[in-house]
Amino acid sequence: MGGAEALHPDRAAAELTQATGIPAAELETRRQGLLEHAGTPVVLFDHAYIQYYTGFSFLSNERPVVVVVDDEVTAFVPEFEVARTEEEGHFDRVESYPEYPGPEHPMRLLARLLDGPVAADQDGYPGILGYEGPPLSEVTGLPVETLQPWIEQQLRRKSPAEVELIRESGRWCAYAHRLLQQYSIAGATEAEASLRAGHEATLAMLEALGPDYAGQLGSQDGATAGYRGQIGRRSAWAHAVAHNIRFESGDMLVSETAAPVWGYNAELERGMVVGEPTDEQRRLFEHTVAAQQVAFDALRPGVTCADVDRAVLDYFDENGIRDLWRQHTGHGIGLRNHEAPFLDVGDDTPVEPGMVFTIEPGVYQEGLGGFRHSDTVVVTDDGIELLTHYPRDLESLTT
Amino acid sequence: MGGAEALHPDRAAAELTQATGIPAAELETRRQGLLEHAGTPVVLFDHAYIQYYTGFSFLSNERPVVVVVDDEVTAFVPEFEVARTEEEGHFDRVESYPEYPGPEHPMRLLARLLDGPVAADQDGYPGILGYEGPPLSEVTGLPVETLQPWIEQQLRRKSPAEVELIRESGRWCAYAHRLLQQYSIAGATEAEASLRAGHEATLAMLEALGPDYAGQLGSQDGATAGYRGQIGRRSAWAHAVAHNIRFESGDMLVSETAAPVWGYNAELERGMVVGEPTDEQRRLFEHTVAAQQVAFDALRPGVTCADVDRAVLDYFDENGIRDLWRQHTGHGIGLRNHEAPFLDVGDDTPVEPGMVFTIEPGVYQEGLGGFRHSDTVVVTDDGIELLTHYPRDLESLTT
Repeated sequence: MGGAEALHPDRAAAELTQATGIPAAELETRRQGLLEHAGTPVVLFDHAYIQYYTGFSFLSNERPVVVVVDDEVTAFVPEFEVARTEEEGHFDRVESYPEYPGPEHPMRLLARLLDGPVAADQDGYPGILGYEGPPLSEVTGLPVETLQPWIEQQLRRKSPAEVELIRESGRWCAYAHRLLQQYSIAGATEAEASLRAGHEATLAMLEALGPDYAGQLGSQDGATAGYRGQIGRRSAWAHAVAHNIRFESGDMLVSETAAPVWGYNAELERGMVVGEPTDEQRRLFEHTVAAQQVAFDALRPGVTCADVDRAVLDYFDENGIRDLWRQHTGHGIGLRNHEAPFLDVGDDTPVEPGMVFTIEPGVYQEGLGGFRHSDTVVVTDDGIELLTHYPRDLESLTT
Repeated sequence: MGGAEALHPDRAAAELTQATGIPAAELETRRQGLLEHAGTPVVLFDHAYIQYYTGFSFLSNERPVVVVVDDEVTAFVPEFEVARTEEEGHFDRVESYPEYPGPEHPMRLLARLLDGPVAADQDGYPGILGYEGPPLSEVTGLPVETLQPWIEQQLRRKSPAEVELIRESGRWCAYAHRLLQQYSIAGATEAEASLRAGHEATLAMLEALGPDYAGQLGSQDGATAGYRGQIGRRSAWAHAVAHNIRFESGDMLVSETAAPVWGYNAELERGMVVGEPTDEQRRLFEHTVAAQQVAFDALRPGVTCADVDRAVLDYFDENGIRDLWRQHTGHGIGLRNHEAPFLDVGDDTPVEPGMVFTIEPGVYQEGLGGFRHSDTVVVTDDGIELLTHYPRDLESLTT
């Protein structure tokens, strides 16, 4: 694990964040807002929405995990989840069904728990991993008001507690990225650099955040960093896939990182060069930094998402490099790695304080490679605040 | 990386499998069957279905990637995916839209590519990561026949090529598991054992399978092994979540592994004990092995999925341990880690040759812990063949 110690985020700083997930009182306030809006009990089927309103995390699969929000909060889970749900969740009641599909369909058993009209995020459990079942409205025999669009609106503005978790994630993304950069040298492979960085960063993160920490996104906790195949000329493909490529001098790189913290991720990505950059690479790199700065400067309350993306497109046009443009400026991020609204010319959503976005306009030259810096920012009352801190200049990003 | 060499699967064996993904001719045959069934062009929105019919893998997100199967096969992708799709996919045509949401909604641009009635896996792109859009039938102005249930039927019986990929995955699951077991000793943590096993197994797998290998499931290739929190008394929770627990002598464990190979995973899990097992642990372990054997013996063409699960439930009842039962016997597995049909009393699907199942009845004692062995099997003409090979006895599974 040589070389990691000097880069280790200060443990005291990690403790200062007091990042222990979303406080119970905030979850309660969210649920009150939901009930006031609906005017009836609300059934939640979606994993992210259940996390958002209850803080409960679980392995989402073909066996429905359902939460009913009313004066009491009830979890409806397969029988084998009861003991864990009672111990690790915070529900007033835990009800269960034997198995899926089981002797009787879970949706019919759920219907018996419900008394009168309900609203729901959607009209039934989605078809995850082979699940099939009737709509909720069919098993209850009553119309179900679907709240998904309204709930999505609630998720858009992050609370200070949510921002703090994303900031904590950003610290560990940066730590994993420093290790990744250190190991991304000519002759090494994508897998070697990525595995070593993830291995060391995760152990450091678990040690610093302590036993209460939970990633709550999928079954892996900790930090990862890699390239997803965006190495050499494949870095011109914004969504390449891994091929375990060996780094060569002159390669352009686009990295990616992740470090879930109680369900929240920041996004931190960097364009880099292996060895001495060429003049053409310098030129593309400078446009990458400048285009990101245009977005930083444009994003504030009072503009629309489309305005920000248009400002970036104008930069590409004014510099005669529209042929190097590939992707819109960024996207919302929170309990999901991508979420609405999008910093895209087609999204007229007004920008509001508390929204958290990635800012990641990239510059891609087919046949040569691409650069993309992605940072995560929160919109403040009069601009933005960076939640990811990592050098953006070429000298710092030459491996 | 000490200790790994002796366990390394024979590289020649890996080469002998010739596991280079599904042959083009087989993909073509699948598509012909799809077109014959539909009688019209078919639009595919689902990532797994696109893999199944074209072999193409991509990062699924809020930007639709759509395939139209007709005499020609057309990919419809965001502009930034065009170059990669042309180079790494095998389509007759690649069409594109600028971005999502973009200046014009991608579904409206897709509609212009279609000429006359179509069928589709579902009536539009699902709401992935904040995607919103109109149904396909709305943008085409024509009814859309939805084929999802029929397509799911096609996926149930695996071809010899698919079975070979699952078998190859199973080899690497076993390799990662041997390392995991080796590192799961009292005093070590879940993360230490899991990270080291995954790190070493992935490097070995990438070296053995060579540059053509692709995992094609998510952005990480290679092999992983861990516990997902099923350590000590938490092993009684069939779907625990990770807490980076430190192993202690006497802990019961339930492991899990993954090693995607061209989109296919086997499932291999083992109940284990840290240090000398108690008599009670021996008793639970013996029931775990015996219940799995009951399922192995019951599964063959001519019975139903429910029959197999009922045989296992009978074993629990006859031995007076129904209170230790938590989950049904197993599930289908293929391009998704869980898929229908389910070995469950509520699933009357007839068992057919070529179906691939996990067999994983577990024995769980709340407050003490649980054991579960999961193996992946393919149904043959007169029984089953194991696709995962790893010791099942207590002596071998004491760390």
